[in-house]
Amino acid sequence: VGTDEGVVVGVDVGGSKVLAAEVRSDGVVVTTVAGVTPGADVDPGLVEDALTEAVEEVASGRRLAAVGLAAAGFVDALGERVMFAPHLPWRGDPVRARLQERWETPVALDNDANCAARAEIAFGVGRGASSVLMVTLGTGIGGAVVLGGEVQRGHNGMAGEFGHMQLVPDGHPCPCGLRGCWEQYCSGRALLRYARAGLGHRPTLLAELCLGDPDALTGPMITSAAEDGDLLAREAFEEVGGWLGIGVANLVAAFDPEVVIVAGGVSAAGDRLLDPARAALARALVGAAHRVVPPLVAARFGPEAGTVGAAELARRVVSRG
Amino acid sequence: VGTDEGVVVGVDVGGSKVLAAEVRSDGVVVTTVAGVTPGADVDPGLVEDALTEAVEEVASGRRLAAVGLAAAGFVDALGERVMFAPHLPWRGDPVRARLQERWETPVALDNDANCAARAEIAFGVGRGASSVLMVTLGTGIGGAVVLGGEVQRGHNGMAGEFGHMQLVPDGHPCPCGLRGCWEQYCSGRALLRYARAGLGHRPTLLAELCLGDPDALTGPMITSAAEDGDLLAREAFEEVGGWLGIGVANLVAAFDPEVVIVAGGVSAAGDRLLDPARAALARALVGAAHRVVPPLVAARFGPEAGTVGAAELARRVVSRG
Repeated sequence: VGTDEGVVVGVDVGGSKVLAAEVRSDGVVVTTVAGVTPGADVDPGLVEDALTEAVEEVASGRRLAAVGLAAAGFVDALGERVMFAPHLPWRGDPVRARLQERWETPVALDNDANCAARAEIAFGVGRGASSVLMVTLGTGIGGAVVLGGEVQRGHNGMAGEFGHMQLVPDGHPCPCGLRGCWEQYCSGRALLRYARAGLGHRPTLLAELCLGDPDALTGPMITSAAEDGDLLAREAFEEVGGWLGIGVANLVAAFDPEVVIVAGGVSAAGDRLLDPARAALARALVGAAHRVVPPLVAARFGPEAGTVGAAELARRVVSRG
Repeated sequence: VGTDEGVVVGVDVGGSKVLAAEVRSDGVVVTTVAGVTPGADVDPGLVEDALTEAVEEVASGRRLAAVGLAAAGFVDALGERVMFAPHLPWRGDPVRARLQERWETPVALDNDANCAARAEIAFGVGRGASSVLMVTLGTGIGGAVVLGGEVQRGHNGMAGEFGHMQLVPDGHPCPCGLRGCWEQYCSGRALLRYARAGLGHRPTLLAELCLGDPDALTGPMITSAAEDGDLLAREAFEEVGGWLGIGVANLVAAFDPEVVIVAGGVSAAGDRLLDPARAALARALVGAAHRVVPPLVAARFGPEAGTVGAAELARRVVSRG
């Protein structure tokens, strides 16, 4: 990590937060800088200023070798533009070229879920696997498809939008405008809905944790209550895990991957989420008794996944010349 | 097609029928020979005898350059074995090597849906597309995934089993043992169920066509009645088409392909099936207003698709050495 070859920085541009990290070529995060994303209704220049500040703080005077950006939004097939991002102001902006010019260093761009998948196949639990399905459980569901060791971005850069596969006809309405989307049953938001539905109807630690206010309930409170044996909290994870297994079964029927990686904030619950998911996968996968059911494993990387994958992408782009 | 370079034969090994064809390098079928598959409860040797007979009849004394087999069953990732086929006796048999030895010519093996996809990307409506989703509507649903111009067979050779994606929780029971599988709502079998449900309850040409016996109703009768303006028959296609669009929307969200090809017997209905499918796809695809919705097109090849694709696979294997 000498100053000779310069610093490679990965930046996760989320809806509310910016996380920039110096990442070594072995995927180790040396240092991180966190910032706040200015919002969706501002001039894009303000977001780019915030990114510049974070990148410069990480570099702290050293030369930049390359910067990778992991954006929480739709990135075009060429990795040039952010087409749309619900919580960011970019609308088809040529973000990669603009920042490459501004920073005078090679810049690479992909969406956050694809970057997280790159981190796992390069340094994490997907290492050595040629086909990987990655499902990222946060507020909603993100995802990525890896085939032949490469993240498949799709014809328009929109592959991996698993969260809006319809699993329940006329099911729960989704902010996307559709009904019955997978992420309405399997996500941080779904976890909260299941837990809130039980609040007030039965004894639960969650009532104390949220001080009786269902709106104050958070995912980490449910994780903590489940650890302490709370039945409602555990059932909420079983419910989300069950739907995780059903949706994964559909994707395995279609892709037949070597391994399925579950990432994102909700996956911090580990086997409490994954065990019911594994059981549902074995039940819902066609011909499960006559085939290899792929292992369902928790991701290695947590909140730094996007920065690690973005830095790796930038490094690869530079090394390809 | 001189006798110098020998004859390339593609063979579709279906559950009830064998179709062998001499296929030119431009995908044109020169001649076909049809036979009967001996069944699932016989010695595999009997099926192989039937294939041998059909292949020899196509060759009619000329030298075989290569033979491709399209099998209606699960083929392992290496294209060596038929692991399981509901209507054929092979159970993990090394079919490729066994027939290559018997016929003393290079033999290639894949499942029928993958072979049909090869036919379309080499010579049909998928030509020039780098990513293709193919959905084959017969009694059930078969499918194939093409990325980077290559049919993706999956880690265990089981990619593309779209028919058993669960679309309806606790839905119709499926012979596979699960419930609510896509093919229970979108297939030739589903078309018959929708039509039968209306028989006897309302005036319809179908009553005359099947002579009042719902069990005698066939898919071609429904296609013919729909052509003649029968409302029940048309509604049956609209129902199947609607479910086709919903399932395709899920797959497009995951893969983001350039084009979606609909093949198989049911697709003979053309736009009567595809128009409601296109409408449902545009409704059910997340962010459809902000993205490219891939075209949904009917396959070029009909019942000969498997033979053409199998021959093309065999030719490629030979040319690779």
